[in-house]
Amino acid sequence: MTAAMRAAIEASERARGITSPNPPVGAAIVAADGEIVGIGATQPPGGPHAEVMALRAAGERAKGGTAYVTLEPCSHYGRTPPCTQALLAAGISSVFYAVADPNPRAAGGADVLRAAGVKVEGGLLAEDVERGPLRAWLHYARTGRPHVTWKYAASLDGRVAAADGTSRWISSPMSRAEVHDIRRKVDAIVAGTGTIRTDDPQLTAREDDGTLAARQPLRVVVGKTEIDPAARVLDDAAETLHVRSHDPNEVLAALAERGVVDVLLEGGPMLAGAFLRAHRVDRALVYIAPVLLGAGPAALLDAGVNTITQALPFGIEDVTMSGPDVRISAVPVKTE
Amino acid sequence: MTAAMRAAIEASERARGITSPNPPVGAAIVAADGEIVGIGATQPPGGPHAEVMALRAAGERAKGGTAYVTLEPCSHYGRTPPCTQALLAAGISSVFYAVADPNPRAAGGADVLRAAGVKVEGGLLAEDVERGPLRAWLHYARTGRPHVTWKYAASLDGRVAAADGTSRWISSPMSRAEVHDIRRKVDAIVAGTGTIRTDDPQLTAREDDGTLAARQPLRVVVGKTEIDPAARVLDDAAETLHVRSHDPNEVLAALAERGVVDVLLEGGPMLAGAFLRAHRVDRALVYIAPVLLGAGPAALLDAGVNTITQALPFGIEDVTMSGPDVRISAVPVKTE
Repeated sequence: MTAAMRAAIEASERARGITSPNPPVGAAIVAADGEIVGIGATQPPGGPHAEVMALRAAGERAKGGTAYVTLEPCSHYGRTPPCTQALLAAGISSVFYAVADPNPRAAGGADVLRAAGVKVEGGLLAEDVERGPLRAWLHYARTGRPHVTWKYAASLDGRVAAADGTSRWISSPMSRAEVHDIRRKVDAIVAGTGTIRTDDPQLTAREDDGTLAARQPLRVVVGKTEIDPAARVLDDAAETLHVRSHDPNEVLAALAERGVVDVLLEGGPMLAGAFLRAHRVDRALVYIAPVLLGAGPAALLDAGVNTITQALPFGIEDVTMSGPDVRISAVPVKTE
Repeated sequence: MTAAMRAAIEASERARGITSPNPPVGAAIVAADGEIVGIGATQPPGGPHAEVMALRAAGERAKGGTAYVTLEPCSHYGRTPPCTQALLAAGISSVFYAVADPNPRAAGGADVLRAAGVKVEGGLLAEDVERGPLRAWLHYARTGRPHVTWKYAASLDGRVAAADGTSRWISSPMSRAEVHDIRRKVDAIVAGTGTIRTDDPQLTAREDDGTLAARQPLRVVVGKTEIDPAARVLDDAAETLHVRSHDPNEVLAALAERGVVDVLLEGGPMLAGAFLRAHRVDRALVYIAPVLLGAGPAALLDAGVNTITQALPFGIEDVTMSGPDVRISAVPVKTE
C-alpha cells in the first residue's frame, strides 16, 4: 500500500524546517480494514515523533493495523520514549518503513518490533524519501555535517546577471516561488559578504503574495568583511548569524552546533568555489532561464580547476521544467 | 494510421543532407488491405521525389491505396513532373500529408488531388515534421534564408573549456556521436577564423568508429583573417568555403546561393554573438555536461545585451538526456 507511504512522505515534507536536528519523519496508520486512519509528522524538538502523532490520530483503530513510516522507528529513550514502544502499545501488527535509521543509537527499532511479533519490512519508496524529505538529515546523520544545496539561477549561456549587474529577474516567477518554498524548508540560507554588499538581499522566505513566510530560516553571512548595519539581511525579518571565516568546514561546524541540518547556499561565486574546493556541496540545484546574455558574471569562480581533466564531476539526478525554466538537480559523483 | 506517417518521417530524416535546396520529404504507401507496401524519400536534386520513390516500391499494390507524405504533394513541373500526377496515375485513393507546402509555386497539390476525387487530409503529425526533418527547409522556404542551429557544449556552470583552454571532451561520447550525426545531416558547418586558429577543428562528420562519414557537409570558415594553409579545415576530407565577412546576412546569402538550407553554427563566442545580434540563430542546441569548472571561456560573447531587460528571449522546445548530459533545444521567442 504505497498510498499510505506517500501520505507519510507528504507529512514528512511538510515537517521540514521545524524538526532539526531531528529528522522530519512522516507516518501513516492504516486500520485492519484498509482505511488510512491517522497521519502524523515529527514535532519540533522535544515534541512527539511522527509515529506517536499518527497513532494519536488513529486512536483505537490502530489496533491490528499497519504503520507506514518514512524512517525506521527509533528504539531509544531520548527526549521522548521510543516509538517502537508506542507502536507495540497501540497493537500495531505490521510496520513498513522507507529508510533504515543510520544512527547507531536509534537503530535496531525494526529488530525490537520483530522480536515482539510485529511484521516489519524496510525499503518501501526508500529512494523517494532519501532524495526527498530525509535527504539532508540522512546526510547529517551519516557525516555529522549539515547538507549543503548550492542553488543558482543562470541564463542558458551561464550568466547569473547581465553586464551591468542586473539580474531581476533572470528566472521565472514559478522558479522564484519554488526557491521561496525551498527556503521555507531549510534550516539556514548562506551567502557571502560580497553578495550582501553587492545585491543587498534580504534572504527571507516569502509567500506567493510577497508577505514573509511564518517560519524563516537562519540567515548566515560568511566572510571577514563587516556587514553594513543598514543591510537588509540584518533587519528583523529573521535571525542572522555572521560567521567570520572563509573555511566551509568552519562554517558548517558553526551551523551544526546550532542544530542546522539543511543548508541552502545562495551566493556568490567565490563562496561557491570555496565550498566546492572543500567538497562541501552535496547538491547543485540550477535554474536555467531560456535567455541569452553574452556578458555578465558567472555562478562559480575559483573551483580549483585549471584543466579539463580536473573538472568536478557531478551526476544529473533530475531534470524538470519549472515554468519556462529548466531545473537541474546534480550531485557530486564522489564526496568524502 | 500514424505508423505509416512515422515510416515516412523516418525516410524523410534519412534523406536529410542530400536533397537541398529541395526538401527531404518522406512518403509511405499503404495498400487497400492496410499493409505498408512502399516507402520512399526525396532523391538528390534532379532525381525523383519521395512520392514517386514510394509508388515505385509499391508497384501495382498502390492502386486504391493511401499515400502518407511529410509534405503536401507538389503540383508543379520543376525538374521532375508533379507528384500529384504520379499519385493519380497510380490510382491512390487517399492522401495524408503532414505539412502544407509554404512555397506558392508548389502549393495547391491538395486541391489538385481533391478535384480529381482523392480524399486528402493535412496536418497528420505536423509538429513532428515541422520540428524534425523539414524544419530547416520550411524555414528556408518561408524566409529565403538557410536555417541556423547554434550548437555548443558547456559545463553546468556555463564554460565551454577549462581555464587553460582544454575542452576535450567536455561532453559525453553519446553527445559527441549525436553531434556527428547532426553534422552528417546538415548542408554546412560554420565556424569563425578565431576558432579555426585556436582549436584547429576538422569540422567533419565521423562515424562512431572514427572514420569519415560517406557524406560530408560543406565546411564554412567565417572572418577576414587568412586561414593557415596547414589548418585541418583545409584538408581534403571535405569541401571548404572561406567567407570573408563578419556579417551573418552576407554569410547566409553566400550559403543560400550554393543551395545550403541547413546550417550548423559551431563556434566561437564572437561569431555566435554576431549571429544573435542579427537575429540569425533559429535554434540553440545546448549540451550541458554535469561538470563544474569555475573558470574558462563562455559560449557566447557580445550578444548586444547590457542589462537584464535586454536579455534575448528564447523558449525551451525540448529537454532530453544525452547519456549523462542534458540537451536543451531552444528557439528564439521572436524572429524577424
